[in-house]
Amino acid sequence: MAENGASLTIFVNGNMNAAREDRLAEIAPGADIRVFEHKADLEANIADADIVAGEVSEAAFANATRLKWVQSWAAGPDPQLYQSFVESDVVLTCCKGNGAVPLAEHAIMLMLMLNRDAMRWIDAQAKRNWDPFQHGELNGMTVGIIGAGYSGADLALKCKAFHMNVLGLRRTDKPSPNFDRMYTHAELHTFLAACDFVVMTAPYTPETANMLAEAEFRAMKPSAFYICFSRGGIANDDALYRAVDEGWIAGAGLDAHGTEPLEPENRFWTLRNTIVTPHNGASSAGTRERGFQIFAENLRRYIAEEDLFNVVDKRAGY
Amino acid sequence: MAENGASLTIFVNGNMNAAREDRLAEIAPGADIRVFEHKADLEANIADADIVAGEVSEAAFANATRLKWVQSWAAGPDPQLYQSFVESDVVLTCCKGNGAVPLAEHAIMLMLMLNRDAMRWIDAQAKRNWDPFQHGELNGMTVGIIGAGYSGADLALKCKAFHMNVLGLRRTDKPSPNFDRMYTHAELHTFLAACDFVVMTAPYTPETANMLAEAEFRAMKPSAFYICFSRGGIANDDALYRAVDEGWIAGAGLDAHGTEPLEPENRFWTLRNTIVTPHNGASSAGTRERGFQIFAENLRRYIAEEDLFNVVDKRAGY
Repeated sequence: MAENGASLTIFVNGNMNAAREDRLAEIAPGADIRVFEHKADLEANIADADIVAGEVSEAAFANATRLKWVQSWAAGPDPQLYQSFVESDVVLTCCKGNGAVPLAEHAIMLMLMLNRDAMRWIDAQAKRNWDPFQHGELNGMTVGIIGAGYSGADLALKCKAFHMNVLGLRRTDKPSPNFDRMYTHAELHTFLAACDFVVMTAPYTPETANMLAEAEFRAMKPSAFYICFSRGGIANDDALYRAVDEGWIAGAGLDAHGTEPLEPENRFWTLRNTIVTPHNGASSAGTRERGFQIFAENLRRYIAEEDLFNVVDKRAGY
Repeated sequence: MAENGASLTIFVNGNMNAAREDRLAEIAPGADIRVFEHKADLEANIADADIVAGEVSEAAFANATRLKWVQSWAAGPDPQLYQSFVESDVVLTCCKGNGAVPLAEHAIMLMLMLNRDAMRWIDAQAKRNWDPFQHGELNGMTVGIIGAGYSGADLALKCKAFHMNVLGLRRTDKPSPNFDRMYTHAELHTFLAACDFVVMTAPYTPETANMLAEAEFRAMKPSAFYICFSRGGIANDDALYRAVDEGWIAGAGLDAHGTEPLEPENRFWTLRNTIVTPHNGASSAGTRERGFQIFAENLRRYIAEEDLFNVVDKRAGY
């Protein structure tokens, strides 16, 4: 790699402003930094790029002959993991961690709204109807968090402050702060049966795809809710729909979906006791800023020939 | 007081079921325990009562010649504090603490919904519209909690788990766990100017009535939200309405109101950026059970001639 990055060509698509461009120029003096508003323009010139911050589609990747490193703006970079990219030597880093805290906030909001039947308040307000109904409290309930990465860990911290019993499930049963008990995948049904809320925070990988299907939703309590803010498709969509529609479980809070965007005719929009948000649970100015800081620090490391962080194991998928 | 309560007549209105009646009979064997479904029936017989769990109105109190103790089911027993009751020797205890945790949950739900513009999600879902807008995060914001009783303390704990800067305001600047800084009433305007959220948890007393009026709302940030789950009237209703309507502040989350119930024509139902709930933020089965446990423990103490707890200072008002 060239000292100070003077011979580097760096393409950036998304998450930029003038101050951030200045910051990149400081980190990589002399580099040719090109900011593209549209991904198509970036891809039309991809043969020039040493580094891309953004995403490169499979068709364009065939022409990316100089490309050495892709920094994804996403925490879960699964769309980048097509076969030719996985098999290449191009390094992939992700923005894992940048949205963890607002995602945990989103999960708590959905849990509170579902537990308290917030839609009844909203409907009553719209009708100017004083309706002081009795509702639940999270206090004393059990939450099961699938995945104990950044967002799962922050959610566990928050759930303890709600005086909840916090269960976790991941590949190993290694303890983690704020989890009262950690389960492995072999214990999935036992774990599910204990939960009042199951929150999906795991990445979408070949291992997690369809990990929640009919048998798993039937293992849950009829009073339990399913919350998902990581990826659709980890829960099988047909099973999830039937689980809520037929009352195997009480409802759902869905930020991540099996198909995105949800088309107007998608059946999940009107599923009973289900709050649908458009995969923007982490879409805050803070998330964008933290994502930029990850790229900036990785660019500094790249030029200094230090190890990058948030490097994706392309075959494991996260 | 009679040993074992055998000569006691105990009236109960509200919060009862068969198991709870049995429990009272165990605590006060031989006592005449009468459960009234309607307050009017209780009051028609008030001359017989030594103890009331519920509320006694001013007119009925004139006939309450045997009455020694009233256990209110409310955390804030202000409706009981008319002059003739305050001046009497009848002891008043309250259910302070029974709803603290669900009230703190309610405040967090309202804060999240306002910070994230949850109504935009709800409207978009109703229209089947995929609208991935950018929103806020509580992470890093400043919350100011007025009152550091049970609910304020639990809210502070939760806000720390949301990585917030937590300010408190009460009569003394004595530190309290999970508050980063405590202010006194003399510093009210400085406190208000620092907050992204101001949450009212204080009781309604002669000292707190109208403590937030025009000057106080004008001291707040235009981006800040006012949340109230304790009592209306601590914020002056006209000032609060104008503050939100005219944009001195960003919006409000109101569970407690200056007049209750809110009549259909009340202007707060349709106030911009305001979520109205009908003073049921604490209305959970857990709150009712904890309230019963307070009465049961106090009844045990009364019969054992021990000091009652949650005794209200009738002149201070809480």
